[in-house]
Order: sequence, then structure tokens, then C-alpha cells
Amino acid sequence: MDIAARRKADPAHWRLATAIRALSMDAVEAANSGHPGMPMGMADVATVLFRNHLKFDAAAPNWFDRDRFVLSAGHGSMLIYSLLHLTGYEQMSIDQIRNFRQWGSITAGHPEYGHAEGVETTTGPLGQGIATAVGFAIAEEAMRAQFGDALCSHKTWVIAGDGCLMEGISQEAIGLAGHQKLGNLIVLWDNNDITIDGRVSLSDSTDQLQRFQASGWRTLACDGHDPADIERALADAASGQDGRPVLVACKTIIGFGAPNKQDSSGVHGSALGAAEIAAAREVLGWDAAAFSVPDDILADWRAIGARGRAEREAWAARVDAAENRDEFARRISGGTSDRLAPTIAALKQQALASQPKVATRRASEMVLEVVNPELPETLGGSADLTGSNNTRTKDLGMFTPENRTGRYIHYGIREHGMAAAMNGIWLHGGFRPYGGTFMCFTDYARGAMRLSALMGLPVTYVMTHDSIGLGEDGPTHQPVEHLAICRATPNTLTLRPCDLVETAEAWEIALTSESTPTVMALSRQNLPLLRQDAGENLTARGAYILREASAAPKVILMASGSEVEIAVAARETLEAQGVPTRVVSVPTMELFRDQDAEYRRQVLPAGTVRIAIEAAIRQPWDWLLLGERGREESSGFIGMTGFGASAPAPTLYEQFGITPEATVAEARRLLG
Amino acid sequence: MDIAARRKADPAHWRLATAIRALSMDAVEAANSGHPGMPMGMADVATVLFRNHLKFDAAAPNWFDRDRFVLSAGHGSMLIYSLLHLTGYEQMSIDQIRNFRQWGSITAGHPEYGHAEGVETTTGPLGQGIATAVGFAIAEEAMRAQFGDALCSHKTWVIAGDGCLMEGISQEAIGLAGHQKLGNLIVLWDNNDITIDGRVSLSDSTDQLQRFQASGWRTLACDGHDPADIERALADAASGQDGRPVLVACKTIIGFGAPNKQDSSGVHGSALGAAEIAAAREVLGWDAAAFSVPDDILADWRAIGARGRAEREAWAARVDAAENRDEFARRISGGTSDRLAPTIAALKQQALASQPKVATRRASEMVLEVVNPELPETLGGSADLTGSNNTRTKDLGMFTPENRTGRYIHYGIREHGMAAAMNGIWLHGGFRPYGGTFMCFTDYARGAMRLSALMGLPVTYVMTHDSIGLGEDGPTHQPVEHLAICRATPNTLTLRPCDLVETAEAWEIALTSESTPTVMALSRQNLPLLRQDAGENLTARGAYILREASAAPKVILMASGSEVEIAVAARETLEAQGVPTRVVSVPTMELFRDQDAEYRRQVLPAGTVRIAIEAAIRQPWDWLLLGERGREESSGFIGMTGFGASAPAPTLYEQFGITPEATVAEARRLLG
Repeated sequence: MDIAARRKADPAHWRLATAIRALSMDAVEAANSGHPGMPMGMADVATVLFRNHLKFDAAAPNWFDRDRFVLSAGHGSMLIYSLLHLTGYEQMSIDQIRNFRQWGSITAGHPEYGHAEGVETTTGPLGQGIATAVGFAIAEEAMRAQFGDALCSHKTWVIAGDGCLMEGISQEAIGLAGHQKLGNLIVLWDNNDITIDGRVSLSDSTDQLQRFQASGWRTLACDGHDPADIERALADAASGQDGRPVLVACKTIIGFGAPNKQDSSGVHGSALGAAEIAAAREVLGWDAAAFSVPDDILADWRAIGARGRAEREAWAARVDAAENRDEFARRISGGTSDRLAPTIAALKQQALASQPKVATRRASEMVLEVVNPELPETLGGSADLTGSNNTRTKDLGMFTPENRTGRYIHYGIREHGMAAAMNGIWLHGGFRPYGGTFMCFTDYARGAMRLSALMGLPVTYVMTHDSIGLGEDGPTHQPVEHLAICRATPNTLTLRPCDLVETAEAWEIALTSESTPTVMALSRQNLPLLRQDAGENLTARGAYILREASAAPKVILMASGSEVEIAVAARETLEAQGVPTRVVSVPTMELFRDQDAEYRRQVLPAGTVRIAIEAAIRQPWDWLLLGERGREESSGFIGMTGFGASAPAPTLYEQFGITPEATVAEARRLLG
Repeated sequence: MDIAARRKADPAHWRLATAIRALSMDAVEAANSGHPGMPMGMADVATVLFRNHLKFDAAAPNWFDRDRFVLSAGHGSMLIYSLLHLTGYEQMSIDQIRNFRQWGSITAGHPEYGHAEGVETTTGPLGQGIATAVGFAIAEEAMRAQFGDALCSHKTWVIAGDGCLMEGISQEAIGLAGHQKLGNLIVLWDNNDITIDGRVSLSDSTDQLQRFQASGWRTLACDGHDPADIERALADAASGQDGRPVLVACKTIIGFGAPNKQDSSGVHGSALGAAEIAAAREVLGWDAAAFSVPDDILADWRAIGARGRAEREAWAARVDAAENRDEFARRISGGTSDRLAPTIAALKQQALASQPKVATRRASEMVLEVVNPELPETLGGSADLTGSNNTRTKDLGMFTPENRTGRYIHYGIREHGMAAAMNGIWLHGGFRPYGGTFMCFTDYARGAMRLSALMGLPVTYVMTHDSIGLGEDGPTHQPVEHLAICRATPNTLTLRPCDLVETAEAWEIALTSESTPTVMALSRQNLPLLRQDAGENLTARGAYILREASAAPKVILMASGSEVEIAVAARETLEAQGVPTRVVSVPTMELFRDQDAEYRRQVLPAGTVRIAIEAAIRQPWDWLLLGERGREESSGFIGMTGFGASAPAPTLYEQFGITPEATVAEARRLLG
């Protein structure tokens, strides 16, 4: 069917969809930057979705039981901004559309969570949306199981492009969703056959339907410009007939309506230009001024935006009537249970009494063993390293298609997919997810971990085997730069506790965090209890005096995690040699940076030798070694300068010179 | 068939395979650490492969035309160490096997490239092997096309496990290999149904055959413990009948032969223990002492190791007789063409003459435009950002199934797959690969980029859009921590040139690197030519005086890349205000660290105010800001403290305070 015929076939639909196309063209043109092709190509599918299926109320963007809409192909941001404006989201004024991609607007180049209501998650790095959506769908299933259909029953809709499907993370998402039978997850694939470099056939020949089927998805297809055919497919997809997630392949033309540029990569990522916009307006039958939507069309869109009000009100009434409404409210608000603080305090007391010598990964498990029964909102998991990450406690149960009240997820060997799913679980609301892998495999999860930080999501990464201390597995599994990576990432809390007390404090910080993800770096090897007080959460200070010098300190030893033990041993030798030596434990640099200058000066006064000890590279320590009038000649670093090696851990510490003896020698050298 | 029947069915095969199993059990037991399950499970498949198919000569491990064998399931390292020892690789003595996972041995926990000959690539991080193998297969096709079947014609064999196939990177590899019709790539899937957490069914339900078929692979299956059935499948796979890559699903039992532990995750990753080893020896019919292989069995294995000698000698004779043997020798040695230096020198001269104001991504293209015609070994590509990364020059041609002489690869939206393939291309020999994406998406490629560094492979990552200077695409696309990440990674050269001269010098460094990968961080925005000399490669100094102060400097401004322009402008103002100010360009910190102390002191003398300017986070600059008697009170940083935003680049620089004015103000503040 050619465009003219399509235009006549369903005029009511046509003008709704054209409004999206017009706004998208205008905004990209004004910014002289952006991606018009995707919104123009998917306008028909999105119109049918919002008009007939998506459960939402533009007047209440945060209604908990709304359907979630994820624009995984985030470069097509004008699609969602247009929809939010047209359906009447208050924030999304026409001025915001006019200021697309400008400083201070909520219409960023790619959709940013927290900027505009209605944007459920930040997308742009391809594949993140579809993988985050898996988390939304998991959380929906789990909340429904815990609170019932009456309070939670909705779908997650995703628009994904070829780029999303080519990224490896999509396979992790597809595999996990298919295995978990997430029947309320529906992916609408913008099957336009175009990538930035040209046609998809330049780089890929995958039969996507077959690929999704192989992982247990139901697959449908439609003509993405025929509203009736789209409706048929979406209605089928939404029927949830057999519990499988659904892929709908929507055959579209990128830049649909731009007569000279559509169906080419030229329309993907740059403004159409005045001439082509004029030609497109002709083809589309649109003669309103730029950024203007005729009143009748806007009214129809606003009616769509109000379509869900009655359903929302009915839901609110059910919530009001529910016995467990207070707990439900707490859960969906993300608030911390008041049972956390006493639980942590009791564990710290217990630690002092029992003086356990355990790996911090085991210490973490000991924390989870007491916390998980008290906090029904934790949702744990591991990327197939459960026994190594110590992430599963016995009360959790396993989350499976048959047991949605299970609170432990076997994510499979899918670090990136796990991280993105955790983002989605938090964003959905109702749960506080944590998930484990080896610290070294933060590499595999980086893309999604960065989005945790950028969006400000307090998810917890349980990263065990955090140094050469893991021993024989060798350099492929031994992080040396990963603490630096996490510390370099804005809005990321890197916590590396040295014993059970600090681990308990670290978890208290993580579980009360409101807008910062936590990377918990935990040892494989056993460590003694070094902290002998259970009062203030000193970990929250970032760094603190763990062992005071016998007199005004001449040497300050700083260390984190498994190396604090080395610092304490070195201090004993130095003190025995008459050198007053202070040990400063540095479980987290970020929080120390936040302390006031006086506290920082108190912990790290000027005029001493300073040595940092960490079985990792030096880069993040320079500011502590050299700040506050410190001098290079009076500071040293005991750590790694390159990759590790395969051998038993004690041998590695010895061979790489990360020992009390080496520390003492360095201190004496610097004292001169 | 039960084990007893199998043992009788083909005794010759059985004892060969049992030797692998025995050595694997013994080595893991001695180390009390390692993974016996996989080598025991895949011993039969590996035996048939090495005995009947793999083209190799144990006496010449680096024979260029050998088949490549990649153990993607790298935790099963004892499989390859056993095979190397049994077939007679000189280095792989029985003492090395005895010292499995010990300091100083070549038998690391996971196979490490460069430790033991015969280990073609480092594996362990799952999925890397299969994705690297795609690069091997690409390079083989390309070398064959350039030098003919007589000099290059071999296969790439991979053993991959469930973990490899669950990792997202595997999908990128599968999609690329299928699209490129890499018919000489054969993946043997160890289909044992077990992961670390338990049965695969805990976390995955994917029909792998269907999945591979969807991406254009031929799929076969066999009983992985029946040598005849394995032979049938491998012979079929090796026939290369229709140009598709081949997956062979080998149904195996993990830990085959350990009667009480096999077929469970308990046999995956820890020593069997003396009792179970005794039981296994009984079942397997093995009564030799630990680490001992009966002479007759060893002789049979050694004969297998010598099987390829005649073929290798015939190949060597063909090489000797070839007209282009010198160029072939240069190419497979990885040596740099002597045409590079004069080409770079001429371009630098030309730059001085024409004074181009171009983005460094365009400068990079200008380098490639003159280098690519001179260096037939370059093999370029991009992860679907060709026009943005400026990686394609017009003479390259496109590498496709129909045109194997093409030197440009459309990798698709597969950053991780591209990086791993580049590793494989270099490891194979014959090419020097480079590939592009946005700097921010180093996140997606991290796993393979770390392996480039760990293995010491001089591949080049062309990372454009290297700061907030990319503008409107916003924070998801704006790197702020990525320079810190690359600089934190050992053995990685992070080059951020400021203009065309430095970009040419950067490429000269990258293209002559022997054992270090290069990350080239390049601007989207135009930059003026700042260097006005074309002599020494000053970029190779790491940092150097770009603009000298008018008198003994009171202020030193350090910057890299696009911020050097800001430093130069700030210097002009400060000089006009009577403050002698030096500008130090810092294109690469790693090489500056390698300079002698005298040079470093000369460039950065003590006693001045120091300010670093970089549109990224501060972490990597601390050592330059505070070293050499510097003080925190006399040093400053002009850069980013958090994520970026979506707006035109000049607005962002202004809003984030990365300007000459802010630099001048900071200098005056520090001068007091």
C-alpha cells in the first residue's frame, strides 16, 4: 500500500500518528541534531499502542500499576517526548519539545530517567532498554505474587531496534526472559532494516524470529504502518495466552513520510532539512505551523492520555481497602524498613563477641542471613556464582515461573543482563535488588552499572574475589584496575570492608542508599576481625582511625579490605621499633571525600609519612597520598603495578610484595 | 552405553582419552584447585579432534598454517595442558603439569597466551574464546585471499561451554560469523547441561541449535563419548561443505569417569579428592602412578603430535618457492613496514603547511588515508559508526563473503564482538586491526579490551566522541570516567591527541607498538593545529612543553586532546597579565611515566602552580598535580565531577566551567 492509500484508509489514526512525526521532525530540525527516522518509522505502532493498549494515566505518571513503556531504541527519543506531550503529561510542554537537546530542558538527546516523568528508564546505549525491561517484568511478577492481582497487574512494553538486538546484552535478556516465562513482557521490534552504516545486511543476517523462538518466546509480525494489522498483533501479544514473552516484528520504513530520505540511513541520525520537511508535510498532509498541533488532534490525544483514569481510581480504591496497604505503600516508595538498623547493630555486637575470622564474602552472607528475613524487599541473585558470591540465604526461595514468591534469581552466566535487570527491578518499585559475580567481571556488566550510577539507582553489586587474593584462577580473574574503575565512576559507592563489622556497616549503607548504587568488593580469603567497637557506623565516614599511634604519628598506613590486616601487622612492627604509626581504614573513598575538611585533616594530618596498601593499582590513592601538603618523597604505595598471576594467594602477596615486611621497609625508607 | 561398554568398544581411543582424564585429575588434585569436570567430559572429543583432524605439529607450535585450537571454556585448562604435554610440545613437561597453578609455571589456572606455546589465546572470562576465534577465522580468510591457498588454508576449532554460550558476547560472535560465512570456523559445544549453580535448567532454556541456525550456522550433534560418532560429526564439520560456520553439539557428561561426582556441578570447580580419584581410576582402567603416562600410550600421543610434520614441511617449501615470500614473512611476523615513518613525516609537514582545523577523528581519517595504501596489513572496521568514527578510507574495500580482499569490516552493533575479533585477528597473524566506536562504549568492549592488554596485543581502538564535546547526545554517550578506566588498565596506551600533528604521531606509536594495545581518544569537535613543529615524535614523550612561558614559569597548565586549546588560550591571557605560563600537552600519561626523572622534572618543575584541564574526571591527574613537591594548595583541576548533559558542546563547556576564563580564574586564585 502506498502512502496516499494508507493516509485514506484510516484518517483518524493517520492524523494521530502524523502529529508524532511532525513534532519529531520539527524538534530535530530546531536542534539541528537528533534522530528523526525512528520516531517517524514507529509512529504508527506507538499510536496503536498508546491508543488501545498501554495502561497509563497522563495525569498520574507514577501510578504504580501502570504499564511500563521502555524505548530501548533511545535515540528515537522524540517518539516518547511527542507521546508524553500529546497525551498530556504536564511537564512535557511544547516549550520542552522546542528545547529538545538544549541545556536545562527535560528533553535530552536520549531519554533520561528522572528528567521527564513518563521516561521509565534511561536508554541510548543500545540493548539496555530491553534488558532493563526484563527487570521490570520480573518485579511485576514478584509483586503480583506477594500482593495479588488487585494491587499489581500490568505489562511491560518495549520498542527495540536492530541495534538493540545485535548487542550481546540482548541475548542475555532474551534468554533470561524466555526461561523465566515473563508473559507480560512484549517487545515491539522496529524492523526497518537500517543501521547507521546502511542496510542491516551489511553486518547481520540473523533470523530474529527464529532466534527469539529458540529462547522460548512467542513471535508475531505485523505491517508497522497498517493500524489494523498492528492492532491485531498487539491484541494477540497482550492476550498473554501461554505465558511466554512476546516479540512482535513490526515491518516499518525508517523516516516514513520523508519522501526523499526514508528507508535509508540518511534519515537515521540527522535533521531532515527544510526542503525535506516541506516535502514530508505534503506527503503526510500536515499543514499546521511548526510545533503546533491542531486542537482537534490534540484533544483526541489528550483523551487517550486520560483513558486510564477510571482504572487508576479503581486501583487506588483497592489499595485503600487492602489490609496490607501500609506495607504496600512502604514497598513501592522504596523506603527502608526500620528493622534494618537494630538487625545490623545486633550483628555487630555478635561479631565482637564471637571474633569471627571469615572472608568478607562470607561476612556478607552472614549479614544477608539476618537481613533477608527482616526485609521482604530484598531480591537476591548471582550470575551463576551463588556458592562463591555467598548471595543466597536459606529463607529466600527460588524465583521461577512456578514460584514467583521466591526471592533468589539464578541469573545464569549473564553479568550484563543481571545488572540491567537489577536496574529494572529497582525502577519498577517494590524491591531492593542485589546480585553477585566476581569483581573482575564488573567488566562484563559495565554498561548497565554505569546506568545504575547515571540514573541514581541504589542497587547493590556483590563483587567477590576482589583481588589477587583469589589466587590460582589467575590474572583473567584477578581485578587490579576495577577498584579504580568503580571509584572513577560518578555516583558509585565503592565499599571494600575489612572484616565482619565493616561488612555489616557497608550493607547498612547500601540498604539505606536512596540514589547511589553500591559496589561491594569482597574477599575470597579469610580475614580477622579488626574492628573492636560496634557503635557508630564508621564505614560511613569513608576513612577512619582504626589503630591509633602510641604518640603523635610519624607514619600513617592507609588500606582497604583485605590489606587492612597487613597495615595493622606493619604498624605493630613499626611501633615495636619506636615509630608511632597510625592505621587508617579506608572502606570507601567517596564518603571520605564528603567529610568536612576538619575531619579529613584529623584523620590524615600533614607532616607524616603516608603509605597506602591495596592489592590493586595506585591511581585512586594519589589524592590521599599527596594531598594536604604531602610530598611524593614522603609517600609510598604498596600494591600492584600490572596484572596478577596464577598461584596460591599467599604466594602472590609475597611475590608482589604486598606484605607487612614490605610496608615496614617502605616506611623506614621514607623516614630516611 | 555404560562406561564399561564404552571402554571395550574402542580401547585404542579409550586409553588416549583416559590419559587426559588422569593428568587432569592429578594436576587439580595436586593444586587442590582447578576444574576437573570439563577436561574429563571433553577428553573424548578432544582426542578425536587431535588424533584425526587438527592440523598441527607439536615440534613447531608457531607454524603459521596450523589449525587454531581455542579452548573457550578456559577453566578446563587441564584439557589443553594435557594435550600439549601428551602430543609433545617441548615446553609442556610433566613438571609443568605437576606445577599446575603454581608461581612461575606456564600452567596457569586459565590458559594464558604467551605462557605456553600452543595456547592460542587467553581464555577464562567466558565467551571470549568463541568471539576471539571469529577473528582468527576472519584473518585466515583474508590472508588466504591475499596470499593464496598454498600459503594459508586452515581451520579454527573452538571448544565452548554453556557459560560461553550464555554470555552476550557469544551472540555478537555468532551473528558476525554467520553473516560473514566463516566456513572454517567450527565450534564444539560441550553440552553437559551443568553450570556452577547446578543444572543449566536453573537459568536457561535456549535451544542452542535453533539459535545458531537463526544466525546462519550449520549445526550437527554427536554423542561426546562415542569416538565413532564424534568422528562422524567432526568429519562432516570439517568438510566445509557450504561455507557456513559449524556448531557441533557434543553431548557429554561433566566429570566423565568420576563415578560418584560426574554429571553434577560438584565436579566443575574443585579437586575430586583421593577417594574419588581412586574410584575413577578403577572405572577408567588406569593404574599408572600419578602424573605418569605408560610409554605405549605416550608414544601413540607423540605420534599424533608429529602427524602434521610432512604437511608443515610441504608448506614451508611452498613458502620458500613463493615470489612474495619476503612480504609474507614480514606480514606473519607482525613487523612494521618501513613505509610508515616517511608517510607520517610527510603528513606532519603537510599539516604545518595547511594548518587544518579539524576534529581529531577527522585527523585520524587523514592519517589512515595516507597510511592504509602503504600498509596492506591494516584491517579496519567499526561497530556501525563508520561515518562518525572516520575509520573507512576509500581504498580499503569491504570485507564480505564475496570479497575477502576487502580490508574494512562492518562489525555491526557489536562492540564487544569487534574487540574480541580484533584480538583474534592480531593473534592469527598477518594483519594489524583497528576498529572504532564511541569512547563511551569502551564500556561494552571492556572484557575484550582487558584481554588485549593482558595478552599484549597491539590492536588499535579508535574511540571517537571522547568527551562532553560530543554535545547533544547527552550523558549516556559522554565519557567522563573512561579515560581514567583506560589509564588504570595495565599495559594499555591511552592516547588523546590535540591536533593533526599529535594524531599522526599517535598513529605512528600505535602502528609500531609490539605488545601494547592503543586506545585512541578522539574529538567530535574541530580543533586548531597547535603543534608548529614536525620533527621529533613528541607524543612519544607522553607529555612535553607545547608553549613555553615568557620567563621562569609561575603557572603550568597541563591538558590533553580538545582541552589543550583551552590551555593555550588561558596561557595567552595569563601572559598578558604578566604571569609567565607554560602549557604542557599530555597526549599520553603512560609514556610520560616511562621517561627518566630528569625529563619529567624538566617538563614539570617544582614550585609552580599546576592546573590540569581535561573534560573528564580528575582521578588520573592527581599524580601529575601533586607529585614532585607539589601541594594541594597550589594545584587545581578544571574538568568534570559528574556526568554530562545534553546540549550543544560549547554550552556544555561553558556550563561545566571548562573554559580559558575558568582556568585563568583558578590560576589567579592559586597564585593568591
